[in-house]
Amino acid sequence: MTGLVRPQNLRGFRDLLPEEMLLRNEVVARITKVYESFGFVPLDTPVLESLPTLLGSGGEEADKQIFIVRENVKPVAAEGEEEAGPVEVGMRFDLTVPFARIIAQYAPQQIKLPFRRYHCGPVFRADDPQPEQGRFRQFTQFDADIAGSSTVAADAEIVALLTSAFDALDLGRGDGYVVRVNNRKLVDAFLAGVGIGEFEVARHVLRVLDKADKITPEALRAELGEGRFDVSGDRIRGVGLAEDLIDRLLAFVGVQGATRTETLDRLAALLPDDEQAQAAVAEVREFLGHLKALGVSEAGVKLDPSLARGLAYYTGTVYEATLVGAGVGSIGGGGRYDGLVSRFSDDPVAAVGVSIGIDRLVTGLANLGIAYSTAKTTADVVVLVMPKVDPVEATRVSALLREAGVATELYVGESVGKVGKQLAYANNQGFKAAVMIGGNEVKDGTVTVKNLIAGAESRAAIADNSEYRAAKAAGQMTVPRAELLATVREILGTVSEENR
Amino acid sequence: MTGLVRPQNLRGFRDLLPEEMLLRNEVVARITKVYESFGFVPLDTPVLESLPTLLGSGGEEADKQIFIVRENVKPVAAEGEEEAGPVEVGMRFDLTVPFARIIAQYAPQQIKLPFRRYHCGPVFRADDPQPEQGRFRQFTQFDADIAGSSTVAADAEIVALLTSAFDALDLGRGDGYVVRVNNRKLVDAFLAGVGIGEFEVARHVLRVLDKADKITPEALRAELGEGRFDVSGDRIRGVGLAEDLIDRLLAFVGVQGATRTETLDRLAALLPDDEQAQAAVAEVREFLGHLKALGVSEAGVKLDPSLARGLAYYTGTVYEATLVGAGVGSIGGGGRYDGLVSRFSDDPVAAVGVSIGIDRLVTGLANLGIAYSTAKTTADVVVLVMPKVDPVEATRVSALLREAGVATELYVGESVGKVGKQLAYANNQGFKAAVMIGGNEVKDGTVTVKNLIAGAESRAAIADNSEYRAAKAAGQMTVPRAELLATVREILGTVSEENR
Repeated sequence: MTGLVRPQNLRGFRDLLPEEMLLRNEVVARITKVYESFGFVPLDTPVLESLPTLLGSGGEEADKQIFIVRENVKPVAAEGEEEAGPVEVGMRFDLTVPFARIIAQYAPQQIKLPFRRYHCGPVFRADDPQPEQGRFRQFTQFDADIAGSSTVAADAEIVALLTSAFDALDLGRGDGYVVRVNNRKLVDAFLAGVGIGEFEVARHVLRVLDKADKITPEALRAELGEGRFDVSGDRIRGVGLAEDLIDRLLAFVGVQGATRTETLDRLAALLPDDEQAQAAVAEVREFLGHLKALGVSEAGVKLDPSLARGLAYYTGTVYEATLVGAGVGSIGGGGRYDGLVSRFSDDPVAAVGVSIGIDRLVTGLANLGIAYSTAKTTADVVVLVMPKVDPVEATRVSALLREAGVATELYVGESVGKVGKQLAYANNQGFKAAVMIGGNEVKDGTVTVKNLIAGAESRAAIADNSEYRAAKAAGQMTVPRAELLATVREILGTVSEENR
Repeated sequence: MTGLVRPQNLRGFRDLLPEEMLLRNEVVARITKVYESFGFVPLDTPVLESLPTLLGSGGEEADKQIFIVRENVKPVAAEGEEEAGPVEVGMRFDLTVPFARIIAQYAPQQIKLPFRRYHCGPVFRADDPQPEQGRFRQFTQFDADIAGSSTVAADAEIVALLTSAFDALDLGRGDGYVVRVNNRKLVDAFLAGVGIGEFEVARHVLRVLDKADKITPEALRAELGEGRFDVSGDRIRGVGLAEDLIDRLLAFVGVQGATRTETLDRLAALLPDDEQAQAAVAEVREFLGHLKALGVSEAGVKLDPSLARGLAYYTGTVYEATLVGAGVGSIGGGGRYDGLVSRFSDDPVAAVGVSIGIDRLVTGLANLGIAYSTAKTTADVVVLVMPKVDPVEATRVSALLREAGVATELYVGESVGKVGKQLAYANNQGFKAAVMIGGNEVKDGTVTVKNLIAGAESRAAIADNSEYRAAKAAGQMTVPRAELLATVREILGTVSEENR
């Protein structure tokens, strides 16, 4: 072994090669366009934040599994304040906590409320990665949030934003994706109605309900009741509900009507006739009204009272999106979190938002066979460098094509002058045309243009070898230089700007 | 003080608020379009890499100032290899080293050579930040590289890529930006000609020349000669050249002709008539020939024999770009680095590339007053929520406009029902139109559309108060609902899709 460093990945981290990146970039561009059409603006925050920012002053959520940097870093002193000493620093694990910091730090002076921002960036979790299931230690979230809005019109807009993004990705509504929506206040009202009003117990119930699709129905009942032992023999504490209450609770969260409004009506019938329940039902009804006004389809978005979402900071509406049959679990979710900004500020700021998991979404699209392009290159044309000709000829033609708006690559590899190898590269990359200027072309003032689309099509159809050679030659024509652009554009199926 | 966490930045890290991000996104989009028109494809690598990857097996470049993560991480074992133990891990300090790893790891099976990729992403340096001068600990690089190409046609293409990107950013050639290009082999040939052929000495000379615009001419001469003491009294070792040799060297690197070719001719006249010098001149001449074939202007790109570039890994062509009068120093640079992939592989792979510093570029654009848009929002229209009207009315109209392709924000702030405050928000954000559906509008089946562009223009021109009120009312009209879209489009100065 020499002094070589082995080129390798770290566990849980991965490289995104061009084919995947081209798909990702298209996905991100389409989502960005939708987010911007709703008036969301871009924002970026650093990858590193202080640990107090990431964890809150109590530091109670030590299970966030943060990558911590070895050296501490000084924070910037606020105006008129003494400079503080260095603090512990870690890599962000989501984009929501930095967003809450931003609101507390800049609103209302530099940021006017209501403020709607989008942010697409990498986040990091120092947990045990499961690459097979699409769980990585670095992954990309694409968030959209509205701060400074307590109306459920905002909650509904976030759902419409999400479904509009999915529609822009050409997923089918209902069969392609399903967004389940709920409001925690419904289950809270149900529990209060049966005498279980304590916040902690209600949250425990929600956490258990959140597992419904991961554990058996028996295990679910056990965790709502006396608790159970898991496979390793560890005791899982139960909520302690009585059997008949578990029956009623499961019946409540199992309600499913033909429409969102029917589901709500049936839930309302199971709730007590008290103020808390009436307020919860009224809030959800108003939310559903806005969903309808936004044209959000019944097939794509369902009211599901069993949806809980794990995170403790949600206070009202919650949602979760699934790509049907893609085998990647949830591809996005969010909800209303009116308390998070209060970590940083005495002035409470209401907020609601959604996060799309780009890695899972792209994996899901790939699993479903959804692709927007199959080329491995961003250029349409490659200019080859022919033997016994000044290579500047090829360079000049490449510039001419690019100047005319044709995305063009000049061949610069180690097979300069070897036509067969260059054509093999051109076919592999998926270029649509190859341009050649050999000795004869230079002498005659012509260029040779090879149609690689036609070549690829005929190669797929032809078995016989001589036929193959004939077909191979067929897609190739030599034209005067003045006709180069028109010939290339004909192959690309485009027309010149002027003639549009 | 309560349990609040102060919302603040870490020294050397900054938030990018929407106005800056909108400009950055436009800059990145324009550069991306140019890179793709040259056939470059996107690639992404993790923020974290093993320290051996970042530093090389010798770990000799300990001055890279890497943010190191506290816990070590296991690398992925190669097929058929034993699993290795955890290694030290740090945050990448550039995008070139990860690119070299990628080539060694995936070429030629998963990545075909020649391979041209672009990569835009954050890099990290644990040095002393100087925010005033645009030096941050996290900053964004936008790189484009070609691997597997040893022809100077590739070097020239990278320069054309860079100038095409600057042209796409509407910078002026020559007065807006200057790209200086050079080839280290010229100075090497000069030094060899005067008997200084040792690699280390030649590199030392280049490092000193690189400081030419940072130190006085006397200090430069001293560092080429016997050395000197800096202001703190530290001794700076000199190269040890004799006075007359320093004269000749400075004359050589000071050569400047009217054209790139003239500069080269004059340099060639100062070089010895040996093989090394002839090869160097021929290589640069070929490079200049490709530059000319690519239509690269003499004003925008100059051959400058004094350009050295600090990094040790450059082996031939180097370039550096400056935004004239922007006060931000170099905004990009690069060169040929044929040895870097050899850190990871016994098979050498030639490579050449460029890196644009997005933060400096955007700061420079701002300093020069170059902006592509002044709006603080991505939406053109805001729909207000009027008093005593079902808020669903506003939601429905916002969806209708969006459906028709008009980027529209629904007002969801805390001033719902307060028209004056909503209009103040609308004006502050830079919306072009506001749509209102009040009680009368609902009754009459109409909508009121307010032209905020006209309002902003007349506000700027009018001093008198009553005139102001009249003008304010002037930009406002109430129309039947069926005419909403046409009215909005007229204000936006767009026509409907069908009529295009």
